[in-house]
Amino acid sequence: MGRFDLEYPKEAINTVKRENDRAVYALKTIHHIVNSCQILHVSFNTPSQPFPVILPMIGQMGSFDRPSADISDPLDLYLHGYVSSRFVNLGRESGAEKGLPVCVAASHVDGLVLALSSFSHSYNYRSTVLFGHATLVEDEEERMYAMELITNSVVPDRWRHTRLPPTKAELQSTGILKVKIASGSAKIRTGGPHDDKKDTENEAIQDTVWTGVLPIHASVGEPVASSYNKVDVPDYLAEFSKDLNTGNQQYAVNAAKDT
Amino acid sequence: MGRFDLEYPKEAINTVKRENDRAVYALKTIHHIVNSCQILHVSFNTPSQPFPVILPMIGQMGSFDRPSADISDPLDLYLHGYVSSRFVNLGRESGAEKGLPVCVAASHVDGLVLALSSFSHSYNYRSTVLFGHATLVEDEEERMYAMELITNSVVPDRWRHTRLPPTKAELQSTGILKVKIASGSAKIRTGGPHDDKKDTENEAIQDTVWTGVLPIHASVGEPVASSYNKVDVPDYLAEFSKDLNTGNQQYAVNAAKDT
Repeated sequence: MGRFDLEYPKEAINTVKRENDRAVYALKTIHHIVNSCQILHVSFNTPSQPFPVILPMIGQMGSFDRPSADISDPLDLYLHGYVSSRFVNLGRESGAEKGLPVCVAASHVDGLVLALSSFSHSYNYRSTVLFGHATLVEDEEERMYAMELITNSVVPDRWRHTRLPPTKAELQSTGILKVKIASGSAKIRTGGPHDDKKDTENEAIQDTVWTGVLPIHASVGEPVASSYNKVDVPDYLAEFSKDLNTGNQQYAVNAAKDT
Repeated sequence: MGRFDLEYPKEAINTVKRENDRAVYALKTIHHIVNSCQILHVSFNTPSQPFPVILPMIGQMGSFDRPSADISDPLDLYLHGYVSSRFVNLGRESGAEKGLPVCVAASHVDGLVLALSSFSHSYNYRSTVLFGHATLVEDEEERMYAMELITNSVVPDRWRHTRLPPTKAELQSTGILKVKIASGSAKIRTGGPHDDKKDTENEAIQDTVWTGVLPIHASVGEPVASSYNKVDVPDYLAEFSKDLNTGNQQYAVNAAKDT
């Protein structure tokens, strides 16, 4: 966007109250957290139960209407579902209306922050929550756009390395939901522990309790070929694993050292 | 429990409909997934918004009433919060009633499952959802029980290695919520990709597309000491890191190889 970063407006629903120095409203940061999260948690209500329901789903932010949009632009969230599932049906039934109200959470744990006092323990983390309305995508071109987007979110460039085009049966069995974002926010914590002065000045405690951060990151192991695989691990997969591991590890270690 | 495993009864809210061969209702499995998850996603409704809200929280299953209960017994879920936050207030306001209806999700991604067809791609995962009613814990002994339980869930045995006892201010600023579980279920996927026969018999495809699993696990890196730390990394921390890394890695690799 050039000179400034777009932000989600602060409203009652998304304004972070607790530890608001950790709050972020920039689209770029929020969208990046969502797109780098392997599992999103999607919450919605059903007519028959007092409890909201959470489904773990795969999803990705994108713009079918403006494919040139970048991560800091207003985007929609595309979610992968199954035509028979409760959620997709509710999205379908919401039809001409605004859609099914949903909340989507994406969270990374980056480190365990160990302090002198139990109560000052914390995590380094990046977490974001989006609110919006979900509808079923009916347009075939938009469905294809979203399926490619979501497949490439699992492994970059995977879509064009698979058997194409999709069959009719595959297309029929896959539902794509689009969430029009109403609002969102993120919280990010980095750095080491913060203890009260009373504790850091207590030599007996200081001499017995280790304080610091155990950095944590998601790590991809050696590929395990399927029983029917016939080819070597291709470069784009090896590079993906290497980049992911290096990037995740560096982030977690840098977050731990951030002062 | 000895001779049989207790299960959450299958009811409308928790019965897995899609791919129900992956469904698990055993308390032992479900509680283990929750307790090994570093972040839980907790969803609830607020009176003023159409959207449910999701908060990432730290929590652990336990039984204050029956401390000898093991992981396969009926347990409560204790969640760590802050007295000023929306959620704790709603839990408090629910007062004498059953409590605030919540849904809690715990998810592990264990591998990226890459198939010949984009549409047969999948994840290896362990995910569980619990439904229940959340109330604020008022009893001081139960609050202490829960705080120790939750601290030790971050790093085993950490509680007794920190500055104790908690101060009055610490106790006052920390809210503990107890979720009485109404129902729950889990879904687990292991193994390699499954492709349609038409694809596995297509030599041109088989000769170009790599299929298999990229195992994924959470990994703890080298400890980063705080600016005021004065002691060496203690054995219980080093062992925790080693056990976690080995256990997570082995699970992910075994899951990938499971046939």
